[in-house]
Amino acid sequence: MKIDTIRHSLAHIMAYAVQEMYPGTHFGIGPAIENGFYYDFTLPSEASGEGGTFAPEDLPKIEKKMKELIKQNLEFKKKTVSKKEAKKIFKDQPYKLELLSEIESPKVSIYESGKFVDLCKGPHLKLTKEIPTDAFKLTKIAGAYWRGNEKNPMLQRIYGIGFRTKKELEAHLLKEQEAEKRDHRVLGQKLELFLMDEEVGSGLPLWLPKGAVMCRLIENYLYKELTAQGYYWVVTPHIAKLDLWKTSGHWDLYRENMYSPIKIDEEEYMLKPMNCPFHVKIYQSKIRSYKDLPLKLAELGTVYRYEKSGVLHGLTRVRGFTQDDAHIICEPNQLSEEVTKLLKSGLKMLKTFGFKDYEIYLSTRPEKYAGTLKSWEKATNSLKYVLNKLKLKYQTDPGGGVFYGPKIDIKIKDSLGRPWQCTTIQIDFNLPERFKMTYIDKKGKKQEPMMIHRALLGSIERFIGVLLEHYAGSLPLWLAPVQIWVIPVGARHEKYASQVAKELAEVNLRVEVKNENETVSKKIREGEIQKIPYLLVVGDKEIKAKSVRVRSKNKDLGIMKINKFLKKCSR
Amino acid sequence: MKIDTIRHSLAHIMAYAVQEMYPGTHFGIGPAIENGFYYDFTLPSEASGEGGTFAPEDLPKIEKKMKELIKQNLEFKKKTVSKKEAKKIFKDQPYKLELLSEIESPKVSIYESGKFVDLCKGPHLKLTKEIPTDAFKLTKIAGAYWRGNEKNPMLQRIYGIGFRTKKELEAHLLKEQEAEKRDHRVLGQKLELFLMDEEVGSGLPLWLPKGAVMCRLIENYLYKELTAQGYYWVVTPHIAKLDLWKTSGHWDLYRENMYSPIKIDEEEYMLKPMNCPFHVKIYQSKIRSYKDLPLKLAELGTVYRYEKSGVLHGLTRVRGFTQDDAHIICEPNQLSEEVTKLLKSGLKMLKTFGFKDYEIYLSTRPEKYAGTLKSWEKATNSLKYVLNKLKLKYQTDPGGGVFYGPKIDIKIKDSLGRPWQCTTIQIDFNLPERFKMTYIDKKGKKQEPMMIHRALLGSIERFIGVLLEHYAGSLPLWLAPVQIWVIPVGARHEKYASQVAKELAEVNLRVEVKNENETVSKKIREGEIQKIPYLLVVGDKEIKAKSVRVRSKNKDLGIMKINKFLKKCSR
Repeated sequence: MKIDTIRHSLAHIMAYAVQEMYPGTHFGIGPAIENGFYYDFTLPSEASGEGGTFAPEDLPKIEKKMKELIKQNLEFKKKTVSKKEAKKIFKDQPYKLELLSEIESPKVSIYESGKFVDLCKGPHLKLTKEIPTDAFKLTKIAGAYWRGNEKNPMLQRIYGIGFRTKKELEAHLLKEQEAEKRDHRVLGQKLELFLMDEEVGSGLPLWLPKGAVMCRLIENYLYKELTAQGYYWVVTPHIAKLDLWKTSGHWDLYRENMYSPIKIDEEEYMLKPMNCPFHVKIYQSKIRSYKDLPLKLAELGTVYRYEKSGVLHGLTRVRGFTQDDAHIICEPNQLSEEVTKLLKSGLKMLKTFGFKDYEIYLSTRPEKYAGTLKSWEKATNSLKYVLNKLKLKYQTDPGGGVFYGPKIDIKIKDSLGRPWQCTTIQIDFNLPERFKMTYIDKKGKKQEPMMIHRALLGSIERFIGVLLEHYAGSLPLWLAPVQIWVIPVGARHEKYASQVAKELAEVNLRVEVKNENETVSKKIREGEIQKIPYLLVVGDKEIKAKSVRVRSKNKDLGIMKINKFLKKCSR
Repeated sequence: MKIDTIRHSLAHIMAYAVQEMYPGTHFGIGPAIENGFYYDFTLPSEASGEGGTFAPEDLPKIEKKMKELIKQNLEFKKKTVSKKEAKKIFKDQPYKLELLSEIESPKVSIYESGKFVDLCKGPHLKLTKEIPTDAFKLTKIAGAYWRGNEKNPMLQRIYGIGFRTKKELEAHLLKEQEAEKRDHRVLGQKLELFLMDEEVGSGLPLWLPKGAVMCRLIENYLYKELTAQGYYWVVTPHIAKLDLWKTSGHWDLYRENMYSPIKIDEEEYMLKPMNCPFHVKIYQSKIRSYKDLPLKLAELGTVYRYEKSGVLHGLTRVRGFTQDDAHIICEPNQLSEEVTKLLKSGLKMLKTFGFKDYEIYLSTRPEKYAGTLKSWEKATNSLKYVLNKLKLKYQTDPGGGVFYGPKIDIKIKDSLGRPWQCTTIQIDFNLPERFKMTYIDKKGKKQEPMMIHRALLGSIERFIGVLLEHYAGSLPLWLAPVQIWVIPVGARHEKYASQVAKELAEVNLRVEVKNENETVSKKIREGEIQKIPYLLVVGDKEIKAKSVRVRSKNKDLGIMKINKFLKKCSR
């Protein structure tokens, strides 16, 4: 039996419990969802002390009632009835009547359990005894518009989670608790990394000084690595004429992700959703020969894409973000070598950030596509060949490629095992053709080059969000915006504290002296809340020994000479 | 006698010459302008072989005719005549009649010289002998709409330059020649620094790899310097809700520089013309105390401002540019200290880029202003006090301040003595009030802080344009995108060339090996065209001596051990 069936049946039982406890309730719908289920209700206003809404303390009561009902070992009886009969059955249920009125077939199926009847396609369990009573839990109440439309009335939704065993339930609850502690939106505020402001707009993060340091550290790392790998950096504008997006095909095929045009004089300009057409222009700024290929153009380009306000989420789902974007323009026969390099260096770089586990996906030709069948086959085979050669496990997503070519996606797994879409390597048959890109081959003939789009981290914003959740805010030393606090025990130790800080700053460590008029223990607590990698306490003893007392990750590591501490930092 | 009078009289003499040479010409207007004069004409189509337009070879002929006329020592006779009389005089001159019809007074003044009469207020010289015949030159022909309106007919404009002495004329011509060689638009293309593309849009430069290296070098310099000076870096979006720009006052007072709104869902967003409101939001992200002040927030923020397409010019007048922006938020009594620091460090930093000469302007309260009279007076006095204390010469621009406060502007002078607006230090009374910014003072009371906007370079794009013109493309070593070419004499020296390059790259020099199958002299010529600071030629002799032959700025500096060359680079 499928877990979704258990969850669906739990939704019915929850609705039955509510019907028993709050007679006169109107029922919306109640499906199984990831990890659990929900059901939407409109309480008769007299049924609740809260003026028609559930209170958190109602949830355990409903849970208790559900367990009682389950114990009765009720049957889930499926019946097929005429629409007319159904209308009679649901005569007091306006939402069900609305749903009924939209069903075209003359017969509908209903499910009956005890005194609860629902309009439902199923499937369900046979009997309630199949539901493990210690493996579900009602978790939260939320408002939800009827059928997701804000013009409809707001219903009360109760969410529940449900598993096969108590152990699974507990593991899930623990993971959720852990995830909550790691919520990057909360950490971002606590660690003063970024700001979301209503007056600025949704999905548009402002980087506070410490967050901007993180951005810069990641940028510097990428600059150094990619420059060494032979990439050339470029910088391009955030807007371009509509004409460019028409040539590129974005206006036809990507418009729903783009914002409305800006008028300048008599022309229309668009905020860029991608950097690609600009890189094509740079490629075309001179005649290219096979000797110039592969040409690798990289940019930390901030792009703007439409997202519905409902799906925006901290840094991981935003409306403006900085891609660590690059385009590799190469000869067709260089494709597998380039993809091999990309995968190898990509996985190595992800490791530097602490990500060692990942899922790899190969997405193949969708129904609508640019390029020829033959070129798709050839490119897809190249990607497969490389994945196999590098002995990388991957899953195929048939038809999941973008219209312009097949792609390899890497989802990194964080410390809770949650996957995050991150690296993407995409072949593009579209732009070289649309922009008529050429190079002169060895024989002096004009040829069309291959183009690979690739992003390693995906977006700096999103990646910082993932880093925060992965490390629960305790960033590795090299990524911590502030690496060290020097805490003098008293006013007379401030001078020494400054000396220590100066010495550390000279080797480019990011260090602050905490001279505030507060107790040492309060400063240590504050430093631990702010996840500062090292707290160095200095008092009489440390001055005498020309050393520091080192605390890291809530642990006292004892007194250390400064040189020894520096060695620790450079490890 | 004023030089402008000479130039004005030259315009008349040019018109007289044209009248003599092309009878039936219609005359527009002919004023004195900077360095010279012009006159607009419509040639009768039968008067010219070119179908009614002047050809460049006509200019010396007209010049010759002018000299003949000047030799006749003609008088500039001023007469006052009635409008009726004037209409008779100019009956065959439609443009003059149009001008006449708009003059309200019943009498007008005309000037007569020989057979040429012009409707003109003057003043003019008395006699043509006052015109130095060896100090003027006709320089170019251009089309110009009658009265600058594109709906009117296009006239032929002849430009001339005129000075008091031949020496002045020659100096000016030399300077113009020099300026032409230094044109950053030409250099930008030749040195492959940036690209302007019609399909992307006007005034929106794309940085090619070498230009992007320059941007990055300047950024890195600013990051290092300003971080050491206690600035915090932030990063903010390129768009924000219209609401923000209404609160800030930009919507009311700066709208003509802003682009049209972008619609997202039901809300309007604007491309940012300034970074200020975002920095205010960051300031307000927590409660600030006097201990936090001065707070210095810096950003390399790309802003978009409307410019008419006609005034766009290479990198120095664009529609999107990256400000090296910062805001200093301080207590009112910290103002002069902060301005002192800004001026001192600013001038020091400009020197690093090679600019030692400048003009300083103090701009005071305009007619429309925010804040109180008293606060303006106090702030203006602070600025004056600082300028005097630092013994900096400055000119006052009365009423030239922006509406939100007085400012100090620095125009740097390039190697041709041309001034370029660059640094600006502006006091702002507006934003602290509009956003209700506060800090807690020593006594625990809420106070409004002072805010200083400041940009050192102004804009990275513009500054790179100025650098290119200042250095005529021969950038100082630290700013050169490619610093060194290693040129092997033959194929058998390529290995050694690579070794040398590797050694140089290890100390972060930007070096390329030129293995192309071309002669050494061609490579040297190419390197000199591309203004590569050092060209290192390596052949048998150099390999034997473990050294390199160094060329710099078209000069052979002889053979050098690599260590000695490295020392040269680090100087």
